[in-house]
Amino acid sequence: MPLGSSKTSKGSGGQSVSASATYRPMDDASLRPFLSTIPAVPDLLGADQARWRVREVGDGNLNLVFIVEGTEGAVVVKQALPYVRLVGESWPLPLERSHYEHRALCEQARLAPGLVPDIYHFDRDLALIVMEFLSPHIIMRKGLVRGIEYPRFAEDVSEFMARMLFGTSVLAGAAAPYKGLVADFAPNVALCRITEDLVFTDPYRDAPLNRWTSPELDNMALSFRKDAPLKRAAQARKYQFMTAAQALLHGDLHTGSVMLTPTNTRIIDPEFACVGPIGFDVGAVLGNLMLAYFAQSGHETTAGARDGYREWLLAQVTQVWRRFEERFIALWRDSTAGEAYVAGLFADAAGQAEMAVERGRFMRTLFEDSAAFAGLKMIRRVLGLAHVEDLESITDPALRARSERRALTLARELVVGAASLSGIAEVTGMARSIEQEIA
Amino acid sequence: MPLGSSKTSKGSGGQSVSASATYRPMDDASLRPFLSTIPAVPDLLGADQARWRVREVGDGNLNLVFIVEGTEGAVVVKQALPYVRLVGESWPLPLERSHYEHRALCEQARLAPGLVPDIYHFDRDLALIVMEFLSPHIIMRKGLVRGIEYPRFAEDVSEFMARMLFGTSVLAGAAAPYKGLVADFAPNVALCRITEDLVFTDPYRDAPLNRWTSPELDNMALSFRKDAPLKRAAQARKYQFMTAAQALLHGDLHTGSVMLTPTNTRIIDPEFACVGPIGFDVGAVLGNLMLAYFAQSGHETTAGARDGYREWLLAQVTQVWRRFEERFIALWRDSTAGEAYVAGLFADAAGQAEMAVERGRFMRTLFEDSAAFAGLKMIRRVLGLAHVEDLESITDPALRARSERRALTLARELVVGAASLSGIAEVTGMARSIEQEIA
Repeated sequence: MPLGSSKTSKGSGGQSVSASATYRPMDDASLRPFLSTIPAVPDLLGADQARWRVREVGDGNLNLVFIVEGTEGAVVVKQALPYVRLVGESWPLPLERSHYEHRALCEQARLAPGLVPDIYHFDRDLALIVMEFLSPHIIMRKGLVRGIEYPRFAEDVSEFMARMLFGTSVLAGAAAPYKGLVADFAPNVALCRITEDLVFTDPYRDAPLNRWTSPELDNMALSFRKDAPLKRAAQARKYQFMTAAQALLHGDLHTGSVMLTPTNTRIIDPEFACVGPIGFDVGAVLGNLMLAYFAQSGHETTAGARDGYREWLLAQVTQVWRRFEERFIALWRDSTAGEAYVAGLFADAAGQAEMAVERGRFMRTLFEDSAAFAGLKMIRRVLGLAHVEDLESITDPALRARSERRALTLARELVVGAASLSGIAEVTGMARSIEQEIA
Repeated sequence: MPLGSSKTSKGSGGQSVSASATYRPMDDASLRPFLSTIPAVPDLLGADQARWRVREVGDGNLNLVFIVEGTEGAVVVKQALPYVRLVGESWPLPLERSHYEHRALCEQARLAPGLVPDIYHFDRDLALIVMEFLSPHIIMRKGLVRGIEYPRFAEDVSEFMARMLFGTSVLAGAAAPYKGLVADFAPNVALCRITEDLVFTDPYRDAPLNRWTSPELDNMALSFRKDAPLKRAAQARKYQFMTAAQALLHGDLHTGSVMLTPTNTRIIDPEFACVGPIGFDVGAVLGNLMLAYFAQSGHETTAGARDGYREWLLAQVTQVWRRFEERFIALWRDSTAGEAYVAGLFADAAGQAEMAVERGRFMRTLFEDSAAFAGLKMIRRVLGLAHVEDLESITDPALRARSERRALTLARELVVGAASLSGIAEVTGMARSIEQEIA
């Protein structure tokens, strides 16, 4: 999971960050008796509690993550801490994020079954979720660094996005459940604030926690902070992120939130979930694939050794967009329950033709949104607080800076020029040109 | 207040419409002891309760409205009924609308002081608001039928809209209070459903409660129900109404929700309040002024007798838009607290120039939105369930139909052609041409 916060978000957001009366951080000794009281767990792990093995494996940023293994199987226990673990108690973060994560996981399990981990138990006071242990899945980002192709990924992530982003919208159903989601997720202010600051604002100002490959990127970072058209476009997208309540977003759908095997895909960690613009999730996937693309030259043993893998990554960009567009349109066309675009108004041939045009217009707007959000996600990972392993694992700063310059160059075009892009092929074509032309 | 509901909204909306345990409709006998316990009321009315006079003056659609007069002054008591009064208990409507009205009135009093009635007391269980008795104000729509000019109106309603629609947005302030409004008003499902059905859907289908001047408008009503581009545009605006959470709307800002004297303006009845697209409120004002414009020929004693008043109405259309635009931009330019378009990013000359362009782009979009919503508001008042006194009071059906045909002709252009309008002068120019050309 990404380190997510900035100085300006400390303790803000209008929510209590203090622990509830019954909250306590779990450890080996407290977790065992707690888990034994959850009916599903002894069945999953095996009844012999003495042989349960507890390991804390959280990567240290935000949460505690335990893997508990028994003779029959294993479960994962994810518990929020009331502060950013990496920094300490001086940087509070609401425990309630665990509630939003659980709420989002339940919606996802309902609308996109099989694509999220199974949930066995949720304790709101403890801010703790007991869920499926995914094995032999690995975090996709780690696979991308190693150059592994995942044949199911584009299809599965597109299906996940289409089902969630169509299914929670008023294109798919009634106003009442949609407005229930709006009301339920609007209070997730603190986590959204992290996105608002880190993605849309901090990379474009002299924020204390920004970092970049220095001195190689000093000039580029400075030029981005002075780039008025870019800042305007970034802030217009921030406004859109804050106000365009289209669907329930995952909210942090990068390649570190995907666990994969060659035959199975699971989307994890939706604690940043909110009702927002559809293109934000789609852009997160596309942007992180393009970061992986530009990172490959830093991982090649010889120049060109990863040419094939680079093309595989661009093919994923194309397939994710095309397949998402296709599935979203198909779900919309086949639905008659949406309270926006009431199907009965368009039942005749002229109405159906008009709706086909309207769906095309709608998807064109989503494409522009997705491209712009992709660019913003790329920039924040190079110039902001939270970076990505794809680039961080390039140890030679000159090589890393070259990859990052290329990523920033494409990203700026996507943010400022989204409206003039002809389609996804132009995006991948620009990526290919930039990879060849920028030294 | 407008009759607001349709068959499809009966009992829907996911909210309980049953009365709470303590709810009871008030009458003369129960109102007196109730009011005597509210500290402000005896001061306002005079201590001699025997001389309080209670009149029920509700127009019969949705609510009970009492005027209570004493020796020292008067108050208004507005109480929701758990059903549509006009139809009866078979048509339930949530009492909670009174809570949303009170919540909106409080926001309006805070942000646009002096432009809404004073609130003395709210009882959520009784769904009852005790508020200022406005005198000698009359409902603006009645004044427009009589041909009265109101010199304060354009300035005051523009100020009200700019203060509310800017002030409750993330352009003006932080995410947390804005998201508080989003969460608080999202459950106002049932009242929004009325808008969604009656404004955006029912006029474009054979809805049982639709009515129009028949047989004069039969062909035009039919052609609108078959007009695929119009239906597409109407439903795209419905989607926008349901998902574009820009600001806290009044939600029903027609000329029947304005009480006026020549020197004072008050906005009343925000029970349809929701967080939605800014242009919806602005369009409601513009559309109702244009309905009044086209209605004038039905109220003339001799042809041309109201030429001057017609031009005054078009001048109001122009002034309301221009003054709203000017005030909204000024409030935005002078604010540094908005979390969208963070002011610090645009402090230098290049940034300020870029933000001036961005504000222009933003207002251009609001103009198109307002024009389209204005058109939709006009159509629903001619072809839908709820009509307006401006037109209904024209007793000669041929004259009324002529006014309505003209209104529908302009309205369709505004809905379908909003993006190609050059500005507000083109709208008033079209109105003038249509008034002269369509018999």
